[in-house]
Amino acid sequence: MEKFVVTPWEVRGEIDYNYLVEKFGTEKIDGALLDRIKRHTGELHHFLRRGIFFSHRDMNWILDEYERGNKFFLYTGRAPSGPIHLGHLIPWIFTKWLQEKFDVELWFHFPDEEKFLFKEELTLEDTRRYTYDNMLDVIALGFDPKKTHFLIDTVHAGLMYREACKVAKRITFSTARAVFGFTGETNIGAIFYTAMQAVPAFLPSVLRGQNIPCLIPYGIDQDAHFRVARDVLPKLGFYKPAGIHCIFLPGLGGISEQGKMSSSETETTVLTTDDPEVVKTKIIKYAFSGGQPTVEEHRKKGGNPDIDVSYQWLTFFEEDDAKLRRIREDYKSGKLLTGELKGMLVDKLNLFLREHQRRREAARDRVDDFVFKV
Amino acid sequence: MEKFVVTPWEVRGEIDYNYLVEKFGTEKIDGALLDRIKRHTGELHHFLRRGIFFSHRDMNWILDEYERGNKFFLYTGRAPSGPIHLGHLIPWIFTKWLQEKFDVELWFHFPDEEKFLFKEELTLEDTRRYTYDNMLDVIALGFDPKKTHFLIDTVHAGLMYREACKVAKRITFSTARAVFGFTGETNIGAIFYTAMQAVPAFLPSVLRGQNIPCLIPYGIDQDAHFRVARDVLPKLGFYKPAGIHCIFLPGLGGISEQGKMSSSETETTVLTTDDPEVVKTKIIKYAFSGGQPTVEEHRKKGGNPDIDVSYQWLTFFEEDDAKLRRIREDYKSGKLLTGELKGMLVDKLNLFLREHQRRREAARDRVDDFVFKV
Repeated sequence: MEKFVVTPWEVRGEIDYNYLVEKFGTEKIDGALLDRIKRHTGELHHFLRRGIFFSHRDMNWILDEYERGNKFFLYTGRAPSGPIHLGHLIPWIFTKWLQEKFDVELWFHFPDEEKFLFKEELTLEDTRRYTYDNMLDVIALGFDPKKTHFLIDTVHAGLMYREACKVAKRITFSTARAVFGFTGETNIGAIFYTAMQAVPAFLPSVLRGQNIPCLIPYGIDQDAHFRVARDVLPKLGFYKPAGIHCIFLPGLGGISEQGKMSSSETETTVLTTDDPEVVKTKIIKYAFSGGQPTVEEHRKKGGNPDIDVSYQWLTFFEEDDAKLRRIREDYKSGKLLTGELKGMLVDKLNLFLREHQRRREAARDRVDDFVFKV
Repeated sequence: MEKFVVTPWEVRGEIDYNYLVEKFGTEKIDGALLDRIKRHTGELHHFLRRGIFFSHRDMNWILDEYERGNKFFLYTGRAPSGPIHLGHLIPWIFTKWLQEKFDVELWFHFPDEEKFLFKEELTLEDTRRYTYDNMLDVIALGFDPKKTHFLIDTVHAGLMYREACKVAKRITFSTARAVFGFTGETNIGAIFYTAMQAVPAFLPSVLRGQNIPCLIPYGIDQDAHFRVARDVLPKLGFYKPAGIHCIFLPGLGGISEQGKMSSSETETTVLTTDDPEVVKTKIIKYAFSGGQPTVEEHRKKGGNPDIDVSYQWLTFFEEDDAKLRRIREDYKSGKLLTGELKGMLVDKLNLFLREHQRRREAARDRVDDFVFKV
């Protein structure tokens, strides 16, 4: 019995990321790879410095090709089923950084049928509404509209379904069942869906009439889809897509309580549209503390940053290494109290969200610049 | 063990159509229904007079609605995988007659991914080529371009995939396996496909924003798809599609040899593009004869029209009842020899094909008038 679950539909338990590297057959990001990336980017994103992006497949091949002038394109996505929370932003913030540093195209996939097919209660009207809403958050992160193309499955199916059929022909039900755990009760749309998720990994190659390397930054829970895509694409004459994988921003309830935040549990989540007072209340009320029960005890024994959610969140949102180290030391020594730590996180998040919300509103007029024109 | 097979992918053996009516749960077309149709059409098509269209579902409901001013639309189709032979034309000739007599729209479906998904050797380039080729035969039959809309899955997926997902969500793998006999080796595109075949049965209702009755004329081998569609569509708020079903034009090799002609076995087939000499050779050489071994014996004992393929084909292509009856009697009495009977069929087919081929060539400039514009 595994103590945690990581699938495209469920993330739960205290996740052993090293074990996932072994189980999924990926590679850990090591110092040599970080140095190689740094030669191109000048600096390393704090998600790389801190192991938030921890695993990859074929990153060295991507850089080999890049160094001989064969640029890759980026592919990431979002299956709309609700509002965007801070956890969703992690791979996209990093994708934005990669786009900027390597000056490459991004294909951003909105499979608006996926959650409809996997969740009984969702309608296609719901997922379409969330698609538009979620696009605002993506645009707000600052992607270059000239180099960024949104693909929406029900909108771009005229382009994508044909390609998905080529993928689907190469995946037997036995394979899909083994990888995704389908049963007789699974609907035939859900069974087909993974073929649609494979399409953005080679569609640019189809459209340009040349084989272009693809790099997919994603939360490790999506790995099943891309393992299948890596198996099939070479049979269709395309490169295996490379991947770079991040851990999950833990839910407010604590690292051991749950793996990944869910928008449907508002108490464990900070939404990108939460106002400053809501953010403050959520952090103060729900963020699991690694501190001691009383101020006296805390001053004496100190707190445990490794289980403290506020500290963990700062590893995602505080870019300054020196500042973060000081916080860690002060918290461990007992100099910094839980309330003070929470206050720092609240300030950091509200600063980020104020700007994000401003850009998110401005994005309403810019959606058309991003949706791919056939 | 059944002595024949009728599935969407295989038709084989001496088919007991009465048994299929029972097995598939359809109704036989009876005299009362024929009279009711005749009240609207003035005359009965010889396919109805001779039981070539022999079975239906909900035809009386279609006429109830029609009589209260609620017109149905027609839906039929062709999965392109090769050239068109005479057997393919049977449901379409009848569909043309229904369009004319009831003055209704026709949605003609070309699922150009279906055979690609079900046949290892076919590419999407093959099926696209055949789609264009097959369209020429459909247009040549004289459908009204103002009331006829071609839907091509890979072209119209932008419209259809979204609707197919709604259908797919309501079909479990267990159901699909039971109806179509899928196994673990079946690819996930083939499993999904039936959802695409259901779409034209309600797409006009979606586009017009009102629930419109649908009547599907089809060869009974396609019944599995439409049984599933009838189960699902009411759950999406649409009418169950009605159906009217024809038997198969037997292959030249004989009724008991095989059920349905195949374009891949050129010896058992007359293609719509065969020239007169080829038609003549095929009929004379391959059409199974119900006659006696020698002229003398034939004159004495007479032939058996019920197993004679040339006679059977005339029941499809000779519209004149009196003439057909005379041929039958003369053949049974021995007055008409096999060679003479074959000559009659050759003349009939070549007359039909000369006109069909002329219209088929003229159709090359008219494809655009028929392809549905989104």
